[in-house]
Amino acid sequence: VTSPSVDPDDVAPAVRELDTIVSLSKRRGFIYPSSEIYGGINAVWDYGPLGVELKSNVKRAWWRSMVQERDDIVGLDAGILMHPQVWVTSGHVGSFSDPLVECATDHRRFRLDELPGTEGLSVMELQDPGIVERLGLRCPVDGGPLSAPRRFNLMFKTFMGPVEEDAAVIYLRPETAQGSYVNFKNVLQSSRKKLPFGIAQIGKSFRNEISPGNFVFRMREFEQMEMQYFVRPEAEAAAAFETWLPARRAWYERYGVAPSRLRLREHAPDELAHYAKKAVDVEYRFPFGWKELEGVHNRGDFDLSRHSEASGEDLEYFDQTTGEHLIPWIVETAAGADRAAFTFLIDAYREEEVRGETRVSLALHPELAPYTVAVLPLLKKRPEIVELCHRIKADLQKHVMAVYDDTAAIGKLYRRQDEIGTPWCVTVDVESLEDGAVTVRDRDSMGQERVPVEGVTRLILDRLEASRAG
Amino acid sequence: VTSPSVDPDDVAPAVRELDTIVSLSKRRGFIYPSSEIYGGINAVWDYGPLGVELKSNVKRAWWRSMVQERDDIVGLDAGILMHPQVWVTSGHVGSFSDPLVECATDHRRFRLDELPGTEGLSVMELQDPGIVERLGLRCPVDGGPLSAPRRFNLMFKTFMGPVEEDAAVIYLRPETAQGSYVNFKNVLQSSRKKLPFGIAQIGKSFRNEISPGNFVFRMREFEQMEMQYFVRPEAEAAAAFETWLPARRAWYERYGVAPSRLRLREHAPDELAHYAKKAVDVEYRFPFGWKELEGVHNRGDFDLSRHSEASGEDLEYFDQTTGEHLIPWIVETAAGADRAAFTFLIDAYREEEVRGETRVSLALHPELAPYTVAVLPLLKKRPEIVELCHRIKADLQKHVMAVYDDTAAIGKLYRRQDEIGTPWCVTVDVESLEDGAVTVRDRDSMGQERVPVEGVTRLILDRLEASRAG
Repeated sequence: VTSPSVDPDDVAPAVRELDTIVSLSKRRGFIYPSSEIYGGINAVWDYGPLGVELKSNVKRAWWRSMVQERDDIVGLDAGILMHPQVWVTSGHVGSFSDPLVECATDHRRFRLDELPGTEGLSVMELQDPGIVERLGLRCPVDGGPLSAPRRFNLMFKTFMGPVEEDAAVIYLRPETAQGSYVNFKNVLQSSRKKLPFGIAQIGKSFRNEISPGNFVFRMREFEQMEMQYFVRPEAEAAAAFETWLPARRAWYERYGVAPSRLRLREHAPDELAHYAKKAVDVEYRFPFGWKELEGVHNRGDFDLSRHSEASGEDLEYFDQTTGEHLIPWIVETAAGADRAAFTFLIDAYREEEVRGETRVSLALHPELAPYTVAVLPLLKKRPEIVELCHRIKADLQKHVMAVYDDTAAIGKLYRRQDEIGTPWCVTVDVESLEDGAVTVRDRDSMGQERVPVEGVTRLILDRLEASRAG
Repeated sequence: VTSPSVDPDDVAPAVRELDTIVSLSKRRGFIYPSSEIYGGINAVWDYGPLGVELKSNVKRAWWRSMVQERDDIVGLDAGILMHPQVWVTSGHVGSFSDPLVECATDHRRFRLDELPGTEGLSVMELQDPGIVERLGLRCPVDGGPLSAPRRFNLMFKTFMGPVEEDAAVIYLRPETAQGSYVNFKNVLQSSRKKLPFGIAQIGKSFRNEISPGNFVFRMREFEQMEMQYFVRPEAEAAAAFETWLPARRAWYERYGVAPSRLRLREHAPDELAHYAKKAVDVEYRFPFGWKELEGVHNRGDFDLSRHSEASGEDLEYFDQTTGEHLIPWIVETAAGADRAAFTFLIDAYREEEVRGETRVSLALHPELAPYTVAVLPLLKKRPEIVELCHRIKADLQKHVMAVYDDTAAIGKLYRRQDEIGTPWCVTVDVESLEDGAVTVRDRDSMGQERVPVEGVTRLILDRLEASRAG
């Protein structure tokens, strides 16, 4: 769906500066800094009118491919607040933490693994309590002496029950996955699925990051799209891993991400999380370097075994055909709705010279674009033209997000729609009043064609459907 | 779309016992108690495979009518975490609280306004610090003496920044509305809307309720669907209020809620929130009584004036045609996604005698039903039948949620789908293999018709579209 005339690899440099996307996002209403009138709040961002549509389209596309179009995956929407024991059992209370060092003179705090001088150190080396002394690390701001690293838990905590002194300490979930594990039995019993099957969830998670940043790449409040695939032990888990990894990479490509900006990176043994037997990241070449876009994890039987032990609830699966009782293994695909939306946004950004002017466009997949179609009058002084525009738009709006704009000349109106990624524009002109036809313009090719008014909605829906089919 | 043979008012008594719906919800996978294997967590519920589809359909239906099909409302998705000053300015830090009394002997705590003996008291009377003594109130459990009422803030608080001692105290938002107010200027500038226009949001909010309960009716974590409509002062606000109130009531009726179980209730002057000039609730007759389903509020210029003062940011609107600068007034429609889904679920519940057996069905609007269609084999021993079922289902799945089931005889398969509200079943039988036709069965009328295989998807999509049109 991307314009064939544009080589995506030539385009990436245009967004090497993250600012291009940050400023477009604010100006056009994709993403605003949260609470900006009060000076902002670190690492939280708000989605504006266009951003909310983009992100919701991303989530819908994920759900479509992970739940709607499959027979072996069902959805779930567990709460952000859960019983605190869940996070003890999962290991998050004990070990979901980052090492932090503090400068003795200016009291600034830094993540140890982000200090100059710690590049390339292994996870084992970073855990050495004498590392600051051994490497002679100093505060990168004022050169002051640094404390030994302390570990800080990344979970936000709060108190449930109205009276703080005796209220229960609970956590904002740092991942949706645990909701799928503790509901495993309920889902199994009510859906009557057989192995292998998956549980998919989309929802907010929270991490009190020491170093958030890079726009919406790492936020303290973010939305995950995680799927837990339950399989028979070991061999089936390995096979599922090999199926899911390319499938997840392909999902980004299907929605337009340039294959050359995607790669896989396997976690080294000392880098693996405590629950993981194997982990491979799908990475994207962000303006600030190759970073994780999505993780695929073989979690073994860690999760269900632990929750079974800790809760006393039998979380075994009974295989009616073989008579076996077993603890399923889990292969997880862990993506972020914000990070995916951000990636689609960056990757779709195009700058090109058109008749001596720079044309900025977002070559978003039609299924992801905030507006599917814009309806524009060539002459807004003619009430019949405006009236016809509104009639066309009203019909389109029953099916898709459509917008009417008459506040500029047609060339400028097209540019505005290009810049927010609207795949098609419908233009009504004086001739339309005579021949009952309108012009449909394509965002990427800028090609125009003449279509009878009564066929416009069908044409747009067919194109959208065709883009979905690939 | 509800069955004409069923009088909704005769049905309500069947769900007078909330347990009917709670148990159906757990058994079929609509809603589970959160963290159940750890003994649960009070007032949080998880949506299972069917519940997540129902709730997401409710949210989509709201968004369709509030954003997609309108020209004057745009969407927003602000963070749950915001700058803490927002909640000082809004009045939530100072006055978002409930009066609590404590028993001196068993230390149980109660909301004053829920104690026996306080029925019918006005808000003014409830604020009297001597009320416990004056009315001689006692602990309803052990008859012990009660403390004077204290006020407890309902906001959850947490700490942002990794080191708790010096981290910022922030709150989980108790409403989405403030996100729309603090983003007013950003939305105005990027969307270039003119008054009157609205900002719609769907998202989680949190309230540390003293007395949550009644299943998902009052939860500590819940999802809101709020719309803030910005208008010119006073007269326009009054007119917008009179338009929105019946429109919001009609939305529930459009999706099948019995008009006889909806009513309007205006807040008495002493009951109005500090920001409100007028408030009317759309109430529903729940199994536990008439309760608020949605609120429509005239908030005057309170919100934008206060945020403008407190932040120093000019939140005035400049009217280009009149040259006026003004602070818009706000009319808010405040609904809950959980409460709406719950209402649709309860209201759709039907029990009737069919051939000597009790048939349970959910007469959910087709747009809200978790599965739009089920594909069922009459004889699963015939591989050609099963294969044809899967082909039909695969085609349907491109467009809607569809399910295949072959684990019982056809009568039982129909009952299962009735119970979860699937509006249509497609049945493949031996004759289908010869005449290339299948049976489409309607949930409400139980009527069956014969349809060519290649016309099934179109028929279902057309019916769905027709149900949407009303």
